[in-house]
Amino acid sequence: MKHRIVVVGAGFAGLQLVQDLRGLDCQITLIDQRNHHLFQPLLYQVATTLLSTSEIAWPIRRVLRERKEVTTLLSTVEGVDRPAREVVLRGGQRIGYDTLVLATGARHAYFGKDQWEADAPGLKTLEDATTIRRRLLLAFERAELAADETGRQAHLTFAVIGAGPTGVELVGIIAELAHRILPQEFRHIDTRKARVMLIEAGPRILPAFSETQSDYAKSALEGRGVEVHTGTPVTDVSAKGIVLGDQPIAARTVIWAAGVQASRAKDWLGAEADRAGRVMVTPTLTLPDDPQIFVLGDTAHVESDGKPVPGVAPAAKQQGSHAARTIRARLLDRPEPGPFRYRHMGNLATIGRNAAVIEYGSFKLRGWLAWWVWGIAHIYFLIGARSRLMVALSWLWIFLSGQNSARLITQKETLKDG
Amino acid sequence: MKHRIVVVGAGFAGLQLVQDLRGLDCQITLIDQRNHHLFQPLLYQVATTLLSTSEIAWPIRRVLRERKEVTTLLSTVEGVDRPAREVVLRGGQRIGYDTLVLATGARHAYFGKDQWEADAPGLKTLEDATTIRRRLLLAFERAELAADETGRQAHLTFAVIGAGPTGVELVGIIAELAHRILPQEFRHIDTRKARVMLIEAGPRILPAFSETQSDYAKSALEGRGVEVHTGTPVTDVSAKGIVLGDQPIAARTVIWAAGVQASRAKDWLGAEADRAGRVMVTPTLTLPDDPQIFVLGDTAHVESDGKPVPGVAPAAKQQGSHAARTIRARLLDRPEPGPFRYRHMGNLATIGRNAAVIEYGSFKLRGWLAWWVWGIAHIYFLIGARSRLMVALSWLWIFLSGQNSARLITQKETLKDG
Repeated sequence: MKHRIVVVGAGFAGLQLVQDLRGLDCQITLIDQRNHHLFQPLLYQVATTLLSTSEIAWPIRRVLRERKEVTTLLSTVEGVDRPAREVVLRGGQRIGYDTLVLATGARHAYFGKDQWEADAPGLKTLEDATTIRRRLLLAFERAELAADETGRQAHLTFAVIGAGPTGVELVGIIAELAHRILPQEFRHIDTRKARVMLIEAGPRILPAFSETQSDYAKSALEGRGVEVHTGTPVTDVSAKGIVLGDQPIAARTVIWAAGVQASRAKDWLGAEADRAGRVMVTPTLTLPDDPQIFVLGDTAHVESDGKPVPGVAPAAKQQGSHAARTIRARLLDRPEPGPFRYRHMGNLATIGRNAAVIEYGSFKLRGWLAWWVWGIAHIYFLIGARSRLMVALSWLWIFLSGQNSARLITQKETLKDG
Repeated sequence: MKHRIVVVGAGFAGLQLVQDLRGLDCQITLIDQRNHHLFQPLLYQVATTLLSTSEIAWPIRRVLRERKEVTTLLSTVEGVDRPAREVVLRGGQRIGYDTLVLATGARHAYFGKDQWEADAPGLKTLEDATTIRRRLLLAFERAELAADETGRQAHLTFAVIGAGPTGVELVGIIAELAHRILPQEFRHIDTRKARVMLIEAGPRILPAFSETQSDYAKSALEGRGVEVHTGTPVTDVSAKGIVLGDQPIAARTVIWAAGVQASRAKDWLGAEADRAGRVMVTPTLTLPDDPQIFVLGDTAHVESDGKPVPGVAPAAKQQGSHAARTIRARLLDRPEPGPFRYRHMGNLATIGRNAAVIEYGSFKLRGWLAWWVWGIAHIYFLIGARSRLMVALSWLWIFLSGQNSARLITQKETLKDG
């Protein structure tokens, strides 16, 4: 019987691993809750009407259709039976493994305030993106219908909590929607009066960047009409809005970009984890007590050169490749590669039309050139010729016409407070 | 005060009317439950993974952004207060009118069997399309996971009820998915063994076409692996499948394309209607007892040359234009146009890759040339330069690569029976 490799999660780590195992004589089962691989770094553009869902997601089966040794299953994993060496699916079905790879990602973390999630959704899946898009667009619609000025202003107040790249990128486009794209289209409201807030508990935005880049980003956002609040934590979130320190702010649209929590893999394994729920792994990326179980990407706590590896796409892909090399070496009875070492690919974030920041070691770039470099880099990393072409055309269209294209409110929702 | 025109519904009739009123000194309020105008003739392509939602829908506000006299409201109409001459919105808000235009379309009709809707969804909105897309794709996924052969075959049986253009177009692409696009991607099932059925109670498919065209369509579908059943009605629909005449067929995916029912406009107006709920209107397209209330499109029973006008996009647009001419004439104190006369634009339907039927009077076309003419005609009628370009590119891509692009399962659904 062939060596059975079960991979759970078709994100950057899991898919990279399967792709790097090409040609190896084995049997691979790839399990994911969704039928698509998602290019998460552009998810905020779906949430803010720049791209449509099919431009950043691809059916996993289609990507792997020529790999006859790979079976793709759309299913939800409920646990791992380590003594039996089986993965347990919802419905009770069991899939046996010789090697198990868990790359199940992360969700938003509300630091113990899970009740905030309903009013401050985060952004990790395509559904999250269309939910946020619907809320953003409905806020303007409800403001147009609002009977009084107080209600109108609450609908026109947008708060993004957390000023990492996702928060900065989201707030930049929201400001653009309000100040540049939508004003012409409403008759009862002036969307330019919308209050667009970026809130960060720490001392500065984009903390992973150097201070000069972070200062540039702040003033670029402010120049685009964003209120940047740093050093003050959000102490409450409700349907009415947020409390910033001790100051209540009526805001009907709140988006959470402040933190992540690893998936439940640690519970399935009964493994040791860090505070964010990430499974502690060896430098080989396996469990300390079972070298046949790999944990990769956002769901693993990996160290490289004594520092924890960040939860970004390039890190996940590098881990997928490293684990694939290890598995291949073992099956072919060759020496295993050394410990995993993270190669930092730099930090990138867009701020809005013609503005971005890029940092790679001591190399720093900002402004319009950084924005173009950022765009070209992202198109290059998209999977598939068609997506590259369509995303490039969408962006070109938006750049030339100044109009976003995916401004659809779908999924029904009662206009509860409209 | 300016003349107040309230238009309910931004489909083909309502939007055409508003566009044709350009330049008239008046005040227009356009109310729709959704924020987008939908190009319904291509909706079946979203349901079957050829196009993505944003390629066939456009924000109404964006289309009308330069028309300062037009206010667009995203809201649901709950009734019309005819004595007060006001439209009542959900939430109680009222909008006064001097002229009222109701163009609120139609939904599927289950001929008194409304309980069938849950298991046999119809196709009228973007949500309908993504629901059908999800069900189609999940059927193959569930078959791949199925534990036994009986369950697997039920998941691989697809039934489309009703063989007008929508039914024929849907079933043609479903057959193509099963027989040509998906086989490579599954490991436990052979998707070519899927049973794809088109069911029509009447004696032949595409009854609006001539018999030779209808015969061609039938054999073209059969050549593509579709089972065509005519002359036998569906007598029951349930979660397990359908009953065809008295023969039960286990089918987990059933799509309803068999009939429509007009919107509730007749109830709002207390007006006389036909069996399908369409409001009876005069040749001016107004209520017999109120010349200031127009009813247009699928929600009106209109006659032209003694025959009822069909519920198709060109008919709705022509009615919108005619009503706009009437309103303009009245406001400018000029003679009104004569009675509405429907100009038939021909019948078109695609059957699959390289096959379509076209009929215009005695002119008949079928096969690959008809398919290209059909494609060019539809691109021409799409709104907006970007949509035309993107749809053309999507189709070109599918034609050259043989791969559909919008194969995403979004919206969560428990795999109830998977």
